[in-house]
Amino acid sequence: MLRVNENYLKLRGSYLFSEIAKRVAAFKDSHPEARLVRLGIGDVTRPLTKSIISSLHHSVDEMAQEETFRGYAPDLGYAFLRETIAQEVYAKRRCEIAADEIFVSDGAKSDLGNLAEIFAESCRVAITDPVYPVYVDSNVMAGRAGSFNESTSQWDRLTYLPTTAENSFVPALPDTELDLIYICSPNNPTGTALRLAELQQIVDYAIAHHSVILFDAAYEAYISESDIPHSIYECQGARQCAIEVRSFSKNAGFTGLRLGYTVIPKELKDAEGHSIHAIWARRHGTKYNGAPYLVQRAGQAVYSPEGQQEVQELVSYYMHNAKLIREGLSHCGYTVYGGVNAPYIWLKVPEGLSSWAFFDRLLHEAQVVGTPGLGFGPSGEGYLRLTAFSTPENTEEALKRIAAMG
Amino acid sequence: MLRVNENYLKLRGSYLFSEIAKRVAAFKDSHPEARLVRLGIGDVTRPLTKSIISSLHHSVDEMAQEETFRGYAPDLGYAFLRETIAQEVYAKRRCEIAADEIFVSDGAKSDLGNLAEIFAESCRVAITDPVYPVYVDSNVMAGRAGSFNESTSQWDRLTYLPTTAENSFVPALPDTELDLIYICSPNNPTGTALRLAELQQIVDYAIAHHSVILFDAAYEAYISESDIPHSIYECQGARQCAIEVRSFSKNAGFTGLRLGYTVIPKELKDAEGHSIHAIWARRHGTKYNGAPYLVQRAGQAVYSPEGQQEVQELVSYYMHNAKLIREGLSHCGYTVYGGVNAPYIWLKVPEGLSSWAFFDRLLHEAQVVGTPGLGFGPSGEGYLRLTAFSTPENTEEALKRIAAMG
Repeated sequence: MLRVNENYLKLRGSYLFSEIAKRVAAFKDSHPEARLVRLGIGDVTRPLTKSIISSLHHSVDEMAQEETFRGYAPDLGYAFLRETIAQEVYAKRRCEIAADEIFVSDGAKSDLGNLAEIFAESCRVAITDPVYPVYVDSNVMAGRAGSFNESTSQWDRLTYLPTTAENSFVPALPDTELDLIYICSPNNPTGTALRLAELQQIVDYAIAHHSVILFDAAYEAYISESDIPHSIYECQGARQCAIEVRSFSKNAGFTGLRLGYTVIPKELKDAEGHSIHAIWARRHGTKYNGAPYLVQRAGQAVYSPEGQQEVQELVSYYMHNAKLIREGLSHCGYTVYGGVNAPYIWLKVPEGLSSWAFFDRLLHEAQVVGTPGLGFGPSGEGYLRLTAFSTPENTEEALKRIAAMG
Repeated sequence: MLRVNENYLKLRGSYLFSEIAKRVAAFKDSHPEARLVRLGIGDVTRPLTKSIISSLHHSVDEMAQEETFRGYAPDLGYAFLRETIAQEVYAKRRCEIAADEIFVSDGAKSDLGNLAEIFAESCRVAITDPVYPVYVDSNVMAGRAGSFNESTSQWDRLTYLPTTAENSFVPALPDTELDLIYICSPNNPTGTALRLAELQQIVDYAIAHHSVILFDAAYEAYISESDIPHSIYECQGARQCAIEVRSFSKNAGFTGLRLGYTVIPKELKDAEGHSIHAIWARRHGTKYNGAPYLVQRAGQAVYSPEGQQEVQELVSYYMHNAKLIREGLSHCGYTVYGGVNAPYIWLKVPEGLSSWAFFDRLLHEAQVVGTPGLGFGPSGEGYLRLTAFSTPENTEEALKRIAAMG
């Protein structure tokens, strides 16, 4: 009988952003004159930089000539990009990662979603809470999440690792066995980051328990403090237990170009000795056809000296906004986290209010749109996420209005 | 315990192209002076055309300005492209397809691979034989293929529908129930195409048996005869039973740009009434982040009057090669199929030779590289695929050498 995948039927509605849109629309209907400031969105706003633009034009011209035209890219990525990443990202930080351990793709979201496919349904999964929803939903799709419990707002086969102010946003690992552990640092949504010793503890746990860490490093470019690892491979032994997912979206502004990569060391094996590297390569070869040549060349340009300088300028631009938000909110008496090594500020909602109630208050009294923490998981209750991706002018305007709320 | 997905472990090695590469390398080692002509490859060779190049440069410039920069694309595709396709591809052929039934992606291979995920493991799958290997492998990954039987070279839970000269390459549908039926027309590898009445019979079968047809129309631009449908939605009732996958690779040469789309009519439901359209939208939203803005704009440019003229010129260029091959081989006494509505020629191997033996003979005696039919499935035995994607000069050179083989 024709049936859809029953796991897909278990998925919860993508309630968060549609509910935000609904509340914002209702507010605008009743206040047509209001000028909203949106600090809820995780997308970049600055245009692509000079090196990237010039690389793109050059590649487009190559595609126009028979001699330099490129058809199908290698499924796993062009050697020029894989080698550049191995050298500029990993060798420079003394992480031992070979070019052929780097799988180029159309972005971290695709990779993080698709990685859920290559493990057995029986694997036990841990996520930090609050969390980027793709980790959860892709495991629901893979049949690994169990059933959703309405009263706890949790999936009964997932292990939730709360990261809140109470544990300084460092997840405590449980006694129960875990096979796959999702870690995002610097973190979306909390804006906090794990220090080297903290991440090393998670790596040590994974080695001891033969688990795999799926490490999402999409925000590493925003790290400003020296003891925060940019890569999980800065930890001892991580090659035995960690997959790292990287993005060109938040450093170089490729959200609309689509480029990312996943690192899988060759020694990463499952309990029966099967190579995870080989299995991911096979998935790429079967269900993916390579990132566009011109986007891969643009990715290479990110690592030129000019490209790196431009990334620094982009990051400084957004992190200036982050500083404005942190300092402005602290000045108004709010407690805030994050915003030092990440473009997100995680605001503690005033005592007695839920994250949705505070969302509404910000919307109605300051015409500022944030993202209620509860939308990222049960431990997000009591928090609200603000992002640094607006302009300084809008960010300052938002803060002025929040200050005026009293 | 950490385990990889057991279905992935069942996959057969991607034997075909690696075996070809091995035999070609061995030949070159022992004949370093030989100049090979490669007619085995399915990739295009002509550069991108003027309209596409000009659109790409324009979009790159937009990405350089704050006012026109585009970040995340809508997961399902920009409205400008979905509406253009609805109008230029479907409305013009009087197929009733709405813009929001068109899901833009990074290519037909990804879509065809990923579609296998959204159906239940219990679905019974039919493939034509010979076949594009992605249909088989993605169903193996989804646990739907059963075990591989070495003696028949078949997966025991897949239904094989032979398409050979004996049935004029029109698959006969079985009495057994089928849930998912993969049809590719014009066909890779046979180069043949189903006529409207033939495809209508398959649609009628699918409606009667409540099956879904996964229709791969990647080669529709090569259709030259008037009674060959370009879209399955030219058939009566196809909106109830068919998904269509399209590509910009073979018409406009986007193999290195990556763009395709999948059409899922809203009335397509599984046996329990679940919307397949909604489930695919959810997959896209979770595990994909949209095709690049500039590639989607380039896709739109394909449908401008200049773009359409250029596609016609590309198709004529390749189809001139197809004609050379068909006529040249027929002249030498070979029996050939395809090459009229597709860029592939399916050559009947001379009596008494296997497809690999004839591959070797072509390589050694004419220094021409084809693709042995057996590589596409058991019913491909006795055939060899040649492609029209080389230059006319190389194609003529190959034919001269084949003629000289005697």
